[in-house]
Amino acid sequence: MTTETKPAYHVVGTRPLRPDGIDKVTGRAAYGADINLPGMLYGRILRSPHAHARLLSIDASRAEALEGVKCVITHEHLPGAADEVIDFGESVSPYKWMLEQTFASEKALFQGHPVAAICATDPHIAEDALELIEVEYEVLPPVLSVQDAMAEGAPILHEGMKTVEMVARFVPGDGRGESDSNVASQLEFEQGDLTAAFEAADIVLEGEFETAAAHQGYIEPQAGAAHWNSDGTLTIWTSSQGPFAVRDTVARMLQIPLANVKVVPMEIGGGFGGKTRPYMEQAAAIMSRLTGRPVRMYMNREEVLIGTGPTSATYVRCRLGAMNDGTITAVEATLAYEAGAFPGSPVGAGATCMLSSYDVPNLYINALDVVTNKPKAHAYRAPGSPQATFAVESLIDQLAERLERDPMELRTQNAAREGTRRADGVVMPRIGAEETMQAAMDSPHYRSEIGVDEDGRLLGRGVAMGFWTNGGMESSAYAAVNSDGTVNLSVGSVDIGGQRAGLAMQFAETMGIDYELVRPQVVDTDSIGFTHVTGGSRVAYATGIAVHESALDIQQQMIERAARIWDVEPDTVSYEDGVTHGPEGKQFSFRDLCRQMPGTGGMIQGRADVLPTRPGPAYGCHIVDVAVDRDTGKVDVLRYSAVQDVGTAIHPSYVEGQVQGGVAQGAGMALTEEYVYSNDGRMTNASLLDYRMPTALDLPEIETILVEVPNPSHPYGVRGVGEVPIVPPLAAIANAIYDATGIRMNSLPASPTKLLDRLLDE
Amino acid sequence: MTTETKPAYHVVGTRPLRPDGIDKVTGRAAYGADINLPGMLYGRILRSPHAHARLLSIDASRAEALEGVKCVITHEHLPGAADEVIDFGESVSPYKWMLEQTFASEKALFQGHPVAAICATDPHIAEDALELIEVEYEVLPPVLSVQDAMAEGAPILHEGMKTVEMVARFVPGDGRGESDSNVASQLEFEQGDLTAAFEAADIVLEGEFETAAAHQGYIEPQAGAAHWNSDGTLTIWTSSQGPFAVRDTVARMLQIPLANVKVVPMEIGGGFGGKTRPYMEQAAAIMSRLTGRPVRMYMNREEVLIGTGPTSATYVRCRLGAMNDGTITAVEATLAYEAGAFPGSPVGAGATCMLSSYDVPNLYINALDVVTNKPKAHAYRAPGSPQATFAVESLIDQLAERLERDPMELRTQNAAREGTRRADGVVMPRIGAEETMQAAMDSPHYRSEIGVDEDGRLLGRGVAMGFWTNGGMESSAYAAVNSDGTVNLSVGSVDIGGQRAGLAMQFAETMGIDYELVRPQVVDTDSIGFTHVTGGSRVAYATGIAVHESALDIQQQMIERAARIWDVEPDTVSYEDGVTHGPEGKQFSFRDLCRQMPGTGGMIQGRADVLPTRPGPAYGCHIVDVAVDRDTGKVDVLRYSAVQDVGTAIHPSYVEGQVQGGVAQGAGMALTEEYVYSNDGRMTNASLLDYRMPTALDLPEIETILVEVPNPSHPYGVRGVGEVPIVPPLAAIANAIYDATGIRMNSLPASPTKLLDRLLDE
Repeated sequence: MTTETKPAYHVVGTRPLRPDGIDKVTGRAAYGADINLPGMLYGRILRSPHAHARLLSIDASRAEALEGVKCVITHEHLPGAADEVIDFGESVSPYKWMLEQTFASEKALFQGHPVAAICATDPHIAEDALELIEVEYEVLPPVLSVQDAMAEGAPILHEGMKTVEMVARFVPGDGRGESDSNVASQLEFEQGDLTAAFEAADIVLEGEFETAAAHQGYIEPQAGAAHWNSDGTLTIWTSSQGPFAVRDTVARMLQIPLANVKVVPMEIGGGFGGKTRPYMEQAAAIMSRLTGRPVRMYMNREEVLIGTGPTSATYVRCRLGAMNDGTITAVEATLAYEAGAFPGSPVGAGATCMLSSYDVPNLYINALDVVTNKPKAHAYRAPGSPQATFAVESLIDQLAERLERDPMELRTQNAAREGTRRADGVVMPRIGAEETMQAAMDSPHYRSEIGVDEDGRLLGRGVAMGFWTNGGMESSAYAAVNSDGTVNLSVGSVDIGGQRAGLAMQFAETMGIDYELVRPQVVDTDSIGFTHVTGGSRVAYATGIAVHESALDIQQQMIERAARIWDVEPDTVSYEDGVTHGPEGKQFSFRDLCRQMPGTGGMIQGRADVLPTRPGPAYGCHIVDVAVDRDTGKVDVLRYSAVQDVGTAIHPSYVEGQVQGGVAQGAGMALTEEYVYSNDGRMTNASLLDYRMPTALDLPEIETILVEVPNPSHPYGVRGVGEVPIVPPLAAIANAIYDATGIRMNSLPASPTKLLDRLLDE
Repeated sequence: MTTETKPAYHVVGTRPLRPDGIDKVTGRAAYGADINLPGMLYGRILRSPHAHARLLSIDASRAEALEGVKCVITHEHLPGAADEVIDFGESVSPYKWMLEQTFASEKALFQGHPVAAICATDPHIAEDALELIEVEYEVLPPVLSVQDAMAEGAPILHEGMKTVEMVARFVPGDGRGESDSNVASQLEFEQGDLTAAFEAADIVLEGEFETAAAHQGYIEPQAGAAHWNSDGTLTIWTSSQGPFAVRDTVARMLQIPLANVKVVPMEIGGGFGGKTRPYMEQAAAIMSRLTGRPVRMYMNREEVLIGTGPTSATYVRCRLGAMNDGTITAVEATLAYEAGAFPGSPVGAGATCMLSSYDVPNLYINALDVVTNKPKAHAYRAPGSPQATFAVESLIDQLAERLERDPMELRTQNAAREGTRRADGVVMPRIGAEETMQAAMDSPHYRSEIGVDEDGRLLGRGVAMGFWTNGGMESSAYAAVNSDGTVNLSVGSVDIGGQRAGLAMQFAETMGIDYELVRPQVVDTDSIGFTHVTGGSRVAYATGIAVHESALDIQQQMIERAARIWDVEPDTVSYEDGVTHGPEGKQFSFRDLCRQMPGTGGMIQGRADVLPTRPGPAYGCHIVDVAVDRDTGKVDVLRYSAVQDVGTAIHPSYVEGQVQGGVAQGAGMALTEEYVYSNDGRMTNASLLDYRMPTALDLPEIETILVEVPNPSHPYGVRGVGEVPIVPPLAAIANAIYDATGIRMNSLPASPTKLLDRLLDE
């Protein structure tokens, strides 16, 4: 479904075989833990059992004495750790915090905070030796929620940290308040005249909303290996979304030149934002340097849950003003996101995204980044947007009810359009909010009746919109043409959701050749120009542009080559649809010109390094039918439709898969997934038996409807697809539960226990 | 020593640490046999015990029945083998012969000719299973020398093959003679009026010269592994001088697209020309496809000697005419080089090089490529030049004696100069023949007295010149700049003699930055543009130019970037010595501009693919003192000086090492190394105990004198250094033996047995 006439692409929009498919189904694909090197040692991490505790002493002598143990390291082994003074005025810079996150120095700030690492000749010895490291703690009272953290007299995590005030778009202010605070930063967005707008509003709705921390839940735990060679070069094999991010961070932490660090990206078993920074690679590198041997490390599932970053638990207070005709005129919101033990929650993105489906002329958003004694929050698919969107979409659902309006029709009335000013001040380019809403309204699902449940469960339907900015940032590509007309395409973007196929397809489209002639590969950081992480739904867009430009670079050289062969001026030669055309009907097919290359100046390569700045923002509109069991509080998702403006679907099967996966994760956040803590700050459900992610048995087939409003800033209109689908499910499912039960579950997940309590209260 | 003022280089000419040094001395460097893959199988090759035999049948059933054996393959498993008709008109194309060389089909043509390959779960099982393959042969009379091969009624190796006549520079003629022949091709060079010149000559000298086949003697036997994945891609790990040569040959033999074959170059334990083609990789690939598992193969030393290509045994008849004033006026020569079982000896290069030290106005060279029942000759350091040069330099030595002239002074009189026409018609560019001769004459060694041996051995001194064209051909380079001002440089040229260092140095010189900031690596064939083999002394020249141009590409982009940052026109910006200069004294150091890149458009990469056609021909002049033991015939080298025009020595230590290594190999060919055959064509000395290469104990420290006459066609004057030093030793040592004993050893090697016979004859 598209509003404009779609260009006649040859490759874009088809569904060819994926290049990584066979390796993955045959088990040949090598992941982070599959590295095996001669003389390899096995590393493990000792973690704090306390959420908040002063480190009094670490005695590793018994561990070091165990046969097979090769070394034990702590924060003292981080190069320059002693010299690094955390400058709280720079708290937006994640680097200095990262040293502290690698190993606690003075205080352990969350259960799972690494205090030491060990390596041994055998993984079991390493495991046993962990227990021989004696750490003396002075346990401190933990801070476990944003409310507690901001309360008067709360224990302070970081002595000396004052709130950094930020104005729009996270520019650090001078921000040194009077007293120490657990609020690391405050970001404010303001537009129009909020007071006047609320005074003029016919209806004002208000609510408080909470969401729990939820983990990305990737199948593959963090794993990798490092070898610090005696020539000063360091090679890291890791399963990461960002080999260059790992390279740059580790190089900076260990104070070695970038060119000395080679990060080899392994296949990755999911990341969803959780694998964009190194957790263990730096420790493995240090231990490799100390022992002269390669060191492999991995996390078990408990470590993944307590030791890596889930998305923030959040508190949102939101007030919405509207006129009786349905026009939303004012929104005021306070967002307090848990950053975990170190500053840096996605609260800014939450503030940016929460209103972006709509044209809201008067607004004030106060976004607070709050530290608590929990693992440092990390990116998770559209980071920060689902939680704040939950608040807004819940209030709009209430508004529709109050006005007795169709909830989609009401949204359409307020839809953001090209030219609408976003909360963060950005003026919208061509977007597909209206088209997405309209497609949802036209969908078979929305037009269907809910009916009555045969088992007597309460049935309800909910809808919600969701928004993500999508990412730009830097990408490189290098393509080498072979003399038989095949092409090797190298990129630095790790393939999580089909990047190899999607990028080879864009290259083939630009060159006007068959997809099968292009062999894509993800190469290590020594072998390609800088490329940002695979994340933010940026790769098909930004690396796509790099690939496109590398193809144009080849075209230009082919034109020059053909001109030389024909002995004509290059400006009389053109390249179109795989054919190089010269004067008087002269022409070369791509393959024929490739065959000529070895004898006429050699083969041709193309390269590009791009930093595109106009990604295409995108929208999803979800429709969900649920059944609520009165006796248990269990919510079943009966039907789910996800409508999404994808710009252009390069490989529609992958796009549909991304949308389905995002919905599943959003449904988990809405219904079952949450970090549960004891009062002393220990996670009580740190396993996948107790931390409950939806499985294929828990959800119906997710129906997908792809809307294509091309992004004018990408040659094929790509917007990016991976993040948007996780945004609407929280609100859509909560609205459906309300429709079924009359209960507003303003605190997610709507787990059976919580919902049953409410049902019993009724 | 140089004739021109040398530019003030910062990096070129220094001696930094080699990037591969630590890996090699610590044993970490991974060679062809170090590959270890899950589920790997071990392959072995069954070879013909007969030098010439018709294959009647191959029965592998008993081998296949052995537990652990996974498959047995023969020529029938070569894709398309049945369809491939050898067109003898195309005998210069090595490809079709290569299929036959991979596995014998109708006839085994040399002892060691592969007839089958086997793979098994264990290398010992594979070894055992070889004996269970039953091959029925009809033994045929073998042809074991060029004389026998060309004799009337000789057994014909290739029924249907006629001599291909060639005119200068190996252009295939129609060349279909009357009858089948073992002479695969005939190449003739002719200049001036030979008959008149000989008639006018005051002196005419003549001789017949023979040399034996000699092996490259690399430390590392051929080894590698292949994995044919079920997605149709084939990965080959191999120790080879030419990953792209392996890729292209294997892809063509197996009829799959180039982009489907990835060749990963391992470290290489020497090649010297012997590792520029695949011997086993194609068999490993086929067995991998059949079994679905990776297959590793290696040769033992016996297989290396009988199954790979040594340099040709040769026969040269040469006549030289000169005037009484020392002017050489005429040379006539017939060269017959053993190609081994398939056409393609280096006789053409021998014909090209033999006279190139001198200005010889009248000449005729008749060069014959002759097949015999021996392993197919393969490239070996300055292929073909040492043998033919041995003849010419011996005759010039005789001429000096006859004229009572200093042998170097006589050579100087006849030296080739810029503008001299070479035997193959090429007009010499700026060369350093005279400078090299002069440096030899000025050397301490040449000015010294020989003296008398305390042990009563006969002492003598010899000199000889040597020439090599050096190589051009295609190379690629890719360089990615990092934000800290370091650079990752990728090339496809395997590092045998210091390419990583030498190329990084040229890159650093061009960029005006420190060598230590550049991290070079050799990457696989998927990750870089086409690059010809490391051989022909081409890499420092051709890949050097590619690296230089990739640096210029980066400079241009840095200029554009700085102009954008300063908001000035690019043509007001320049790049010099690592600094980008703008108007009004604006400037960026390399590092400062690199730091600006992430925020101003992203990082910068350079790439180049070059096909340079003007390599710098080069000369060596060697001086050797020997002692001959009258009682045993053993020759000891007492002192050896090698003077060589290297153009510019990028890294003088490597250059000196190359020169020393070449001398050692040439000394082996002169004194001890030879393939010894029984009458039925079996090599009788196929081990390194019996095939006697000189060791460090056999030779004195080789003194090197580097002359630098820059090649004007390379930005830093590189000529290439690896081949030249193997050319003079044969003649220099033979001349020294004559000086010591009065005996002309016209048949090399001058082994103790042969020399003692001659001494006893006196």
